[in-house]
Amino acid sequence: MRQNIRFVPDNISVSVETGDNILSAAAAAGVYIPASCGGEGVCGKCRVQIEAGEVQSASTANLSEEDCLKGIRLACTSKALSNLVIRIPETVRADGKALKCRPKATSPISAKSLTALVGTWNTAPPIRKILLHLPPPDLDDNISDMQRLMRGIKHALPGHPEPYYDHPELLRELPFLLREAGWQVTVILLHGKRQDEPDTIIAVEASDTTDRLYGLACDIGTTTVCGALIDLNTGEIIAEASGYNAQIVYGADIISRIIYSLRDGGLKALQAKVVATLNTVIEDLCRKVTISPSDISYIMTAGNTVMAHLLLGISPKFIREAPYVPSLSLFPLTKAAALGIMAHPSVRIYLYPCVSSYVGGDIVAGIHACQMHRSKDLSLFIDIGTNGEIVVGNSEWLICAACSAGPAFEGGGIRFGMRASPGAIENCHIHPETLEPMIITIGNTLPKGICGSGLIAVVSELLATGIIDQRGKFSRDLAHPRVRRSGDGWEYVLVWSHDSLTGEDITITEIDLDNLIRAKGALFAGYQTLLASVGLTFSDLDRVILAGNFGAHIDLERAISIGLLPDLDRSRFFYLGNASLLGCRISLTDHRRFQERTEVRELMTNMELSENPDFMDYYIAALFLPHTDMGLFPSAGKAREDLAQQ
Amino acid sequence: MRQNIRFVPDNISVSVETGDNILSAAAAAGVYIPASCGGEGVCGKCRVQIEAGEVQSASTANLSEEDCLKGIRLACTSKALSNLVIRIPETVRADGKALKCRPKATSPISAKSLTALVGTWNTAPPIRKILLHLPPPDLDDNISDMQRLMRGIKHALPGHPEPYYDHPELLRELPFLLREAGWQVTVILLHGKRQDEPDTIIAVEASDTTDRLYGLACDIGTTTVCGALIDLNTGEIIAEASGYNAQIVYGADIISRIIYSLRDGGLKALQAKVVATLNTVIEDLCRKVTISPSDISYIMTAGNTVMAHLLLGISPKFIREAPYVPSLSLFPLTKAAALGIMAHPSVRIYLYPCVSSYVGGDIVAGIHACQMHRSKDLSLFIDIGTNGEIVVGNSEWLICAACSAGPAFEGGGIRFGMRASPGAIENCHIHPETLEPMIITIGNTLPKGICGSGLIAVVSELLATGIIDQRGKFSRDLAHPRVRRSGDGWEYVLVWSHDSLTGEDITITEIDLDNLIRAKGALFAGYQTLLASVGLTFSDLDRVILAGNFGAHIDLERAISIGLLPDLDRSRFFYLGNASLLGCRISLTDHRRFQERTEVRELMTNMELSENPDFMDYYIAALFLPHTDMGLFPSAGKAREDLAQQ
Repeated sequence: MRQNIRFVPDNISVSVETGDNILSAAAAAGVYIPASCGGEGVCGKCRVQIEAGEVQSASTANLSEEDCLKGIRLACTSKALSNLVIRIPETVRADGKALKCRPKATSPISAKSLTALVGTWNTAPPIRKILLHLPPPDLDDNISDMQRLMRGIKHALPGHPEPYYDHPELLRELPFLLREAGWQVTVILLHGKRQDEPDTIIAVEASDTTDRLYGLACDIGTTTVCGALIDLNTGEIIAEASGYNAQIVYGADIISRIIYSLRDGGLKALQAKVVATLNTVIEDLCRKVTISPSDISYIMTAGNTVMAHLLLGISPKFIREAPYVPSLSLFPLTKAAALGIMAHPSVRIYLYPCVSSYVGGDIVAGIHACQMHRSKDLSLFIDIGTNGEIVVGNSEWLICAACSAGPAFEGGGIRFGMRASPGAIENCHIHPETLEPMIITIGNTLPKGICGSGLIAVVSELLATGIIDQRGKFSRDLAHPRVRRSGDGWEYVLVWSHDSLTGEDITITEIDLDNLIRAKGALFAGYQTLLASVGLTFSDLDRVILAGNFGAHIDLERAISIGLLPDLDRSRFFYLGNASLLGCRISLTDHRRFQERTEVRELMTNMELSENPDFMDYYIAALFLPHTDMGLFPSAGKAREDLAQQ
Repeated sequence: MRQNIRFVPDNISVSVETGDNILSAAAAAGVYIPASCGGEGVCGKCRVQIEAGEVQSASTANLSEEDCLKGIRLACTSKALSNLVIRIPETVRADGKALKCRPKATSPISAKSLTALVGTWNTAPPIRKILLHLPPPDLDDNISDMQRLMRGIKHALPGHPEPYYDHPELLRELPFLLREAGWQVTVILLHGKRQDEPDTIIAVEASDTTDRLYGLACDIGTTTVCGALIDLNTGEIIAEASGYNAQIVYGADIISRIIYSLRDGGLKALQAKVVATLNTVIEDLCRKVTISPSDISYIMTAGNTVMAHLLLGISPKFIREAPYVPSLSLFPLTKAAALGIMAHPSVRIYLYPCVSSYVGGDIVAGIHACQMHRSKDLSLFIDIGTNGEIVVGNSEWLICAACSAGPAFEGGGIRFGMRASPGAIENCHIHPETLEPMIITIGNTLPKGICGSGLIAVVSELLATGIIDQRGKFSRDLAHPRVRRSGDGWEYVLVWSHDSLTGEDITITEIDLDNLIRAKGALFAGYQTLLASVGLTFSDLDRVILAGNFGAHIDLERAISIGLLPDLDRSRFFYLGNASLLGCRISLTDHRRFQERTEVRELMTNMELSENPDFMDYYIAALFLPHTDMGLFPSAGKAREDLAQQ
């Protein structure tokens, strides 16, 4: 249920869900409230007065009885239970004037705009069930059991070639199954790879089970494995689950995984870990809807090139060495059970093909999902993770590249960097006069680090408030307690030790800023190199598609303000979320869409940026906030002028 | 080297190989010599005088020094070392006049007549090797290793669809193999099942191995597994080996094997036994030509329906129960190693399809070999083993049936019956006046039983000498010591106890005769039923093809004389030997011929004789030697008239 919160005296309103946190609501509305501890009432700074409506507050620490009677609460520990009028007290306002900071400009893609991008798809999956009523054998008709089954299938699907069968257990069980089922059976058929190729019999089940047909779509990420269970009779997602890729114990990024795979037994261990993760996800999914893993009749997955190699137990050794050659790029349709996956022994696992060593099946699936290969419009597809993968093109051509952006946006190379999980600073405002931060953490708990979206917010705010300059260097003459020089150089204290979970100051350093600038610079240089290679510029882009979990949480204005994304009309940006999972889901549901995957991959031309001299020039020019060429960032330029005029 | 033996005083000559046994040579020439002990000089009856030439005699037992000086030897222990003139002494002739008994009328098919029947075939096997020199990858050409391989194959085989690959080990090894081999590799490709279907990559080998390409042809019999190793670059058989099917410990015939398979663990045990037998055959073959089992790139086999089920580990349960339904009739191309066969993990084992529960892949392979399905001439194909399988037809139609002939011709149901192995009486003549037998055993050793061909000889001789009548009953008034009534009824003593290996009399009983008459009656009724079902008679037959090991050793005249084979012009009979193995060998060598197998099987219509009323009538009429309708056996009728006139 939605509730309205009006913040007075400035009359700024925001709509939230019942139970939403009031500090987060204020941040989203653009109402600045000083808050250092992220949400456990420790710092006691985020005092607000409830003038109307009902809240639930977890803590009254730091509040006197008198405060409580006046309706004073700590915003960070309070949840909205009804429509509210909330006054930002003078004591708080005395921190400075009530600030209408810029609200987070996320515009999560609506169902309608998703359809505009992705198109519609049919529920006509690559697997299907057919019910057969077979005549029992007699002396005039004593063909073999398998021939009888085949004849039944031929009658049911006239004009189709005879399906394959290669599952030994099926052959062993069939004679008994047919007789026990009284010759009424349901056959699960998998479409051939090509149009003219025969189907394959996946399984034969006793009696009529046509109302139960399930498929698993799965994005196998370096960090996270996300699964969606699809009812293939309706095309609906009936359960979702995810889990951290258990390979993480052997290294956080693909390079360290490759290195581990070269050890004795390393490849096997990595395979076992990702399979174990998949099995956990499968178990979670099945438990949610009370089906058995063996009820899943097809598994469609996408992952980067290294993940695909490791899942299949194939060495990724040469991916890391120039000239960066994967062992495989088209992955064979494999029996999932043969890999150790909890599945019916004949069920196949499909892996989206990869383009190159660093542009993997997850990107192909993403492009496939958003139909760039079918649109005349020029699109830029960006998936920011450990690497940033970029694709530019339309229905006639697609060029793609991976930027070694480094894992800054996943918390890597950042002193207090962490993944987007509870306790991570995900949003931040800095008061332009007091230079005090308003800290919002995931889960509204005590802060312990900064995740990717928090990092973009912090850097953007540091730049907007003039605490850092465009080179990412701290202003040396601020004389503010939060801006200091430590043993590691200059830094800004986001959270004081007494307000942090770890009991130490959480800071952002000049080294962090340097890493971040390099990461966003590599990405931006990537966009430019790909566009320039075909004689185009940003202004030719009809749309920019942001994929990945990180992409779904990005603050567009701030990302543009630091030069991570190009400064284009905001209406051209689309958030696609986990595009890899979406691609798998669509392919699993619509066989015609699935068959397009070959065209997608064949259209994609890989470009190696690491050795490209243009890329290096663009990269050097992008090591600036937002960029050395301010002509590329008209709106950022205007914002800086506005700031200067204040 | 061939030697000529002239038997005097009757001047009957025969050509033999150096080292051939003289008793066997006399039997083959139709020279009667009394001989009871089969060949170890025990009975001392087979005295002959060497008048010219050199023999080697193993024993002079029962001979005086004087005899020896005169050149007297025991025929059964003597071998021809040169051209010989051999006198049958008066003492021997005193047994009766020197008898020119009917020589064994085997006419083993010559290479020329084999070609006439089977046709020629090409050396263009369903697997092939291609040598690839791949360009090493660089930054401008860093497609995946597998893509590079595929591109190389595409260049080598323009216009062919991209081959499949489904062997996980190949994928795992390829990146290392390519680099170690310096990008020069040999690919083994298996043709697709259908013309338009892609090939499958069986293996990739370092460097150039195109001069080594081997295939295994194998007939998997209930009793014997026969293998031939083929050099697929030349099409030549380079080694042959065989072994008893180790399943025999669980039962001698297919029915007892089916029954055993229903036990707990029975199916698995039976599969393990036949696989062990195959592995022994493979080891023998490979040892003979010093190759490794993993050098064999394709295995092509044929066996009866039960053997095929057991090899694949599929229950043959319903084969035995009306309406006699096999689980499978088209067997999937299977990875041999998955069944436990000693083979490269990706090598496929092909099993010829079966027509019905009792007309198996061995018969399909046999028909395929002798090209009945391509000839306008009407042929009768007969394979006599435990069952007798019969096929009649031409290029337009083929009807086939299995007769439950019983295992009489393999020694089953016969008191002293045994398989064709050393010590088995394989030939016999009975003197028409003395009624004394001339016993020839396999290996010229002491007799221990009677094999199928011996049985036909004995029955034919008993009938010709009037010891039994046409009903198979002994003449009650002969008053000959060898014709007697024992506890089990009337019998003829073939070997007295002192001349036998076992120390007991070897006899043939009326019960044995009854079983044999039923067996040959079932076969003959089978021929008639099939022919009559299409409105034809024996005179319409252009040829009769005898298949199987037993078929290769059959004495045509005697087989006709007892009504086992139809009484047709002898020139219409062809001996094909192990037709099943020949079919596998041809298919392995010539892919075009292999592709015909589908037409063969599709042309074959199965007829169930067991429930056919015509069959029962024909059967009853055939329970006579040679038949109740002597019009069907003009030459037998004439022989009886000749006998009566003597």
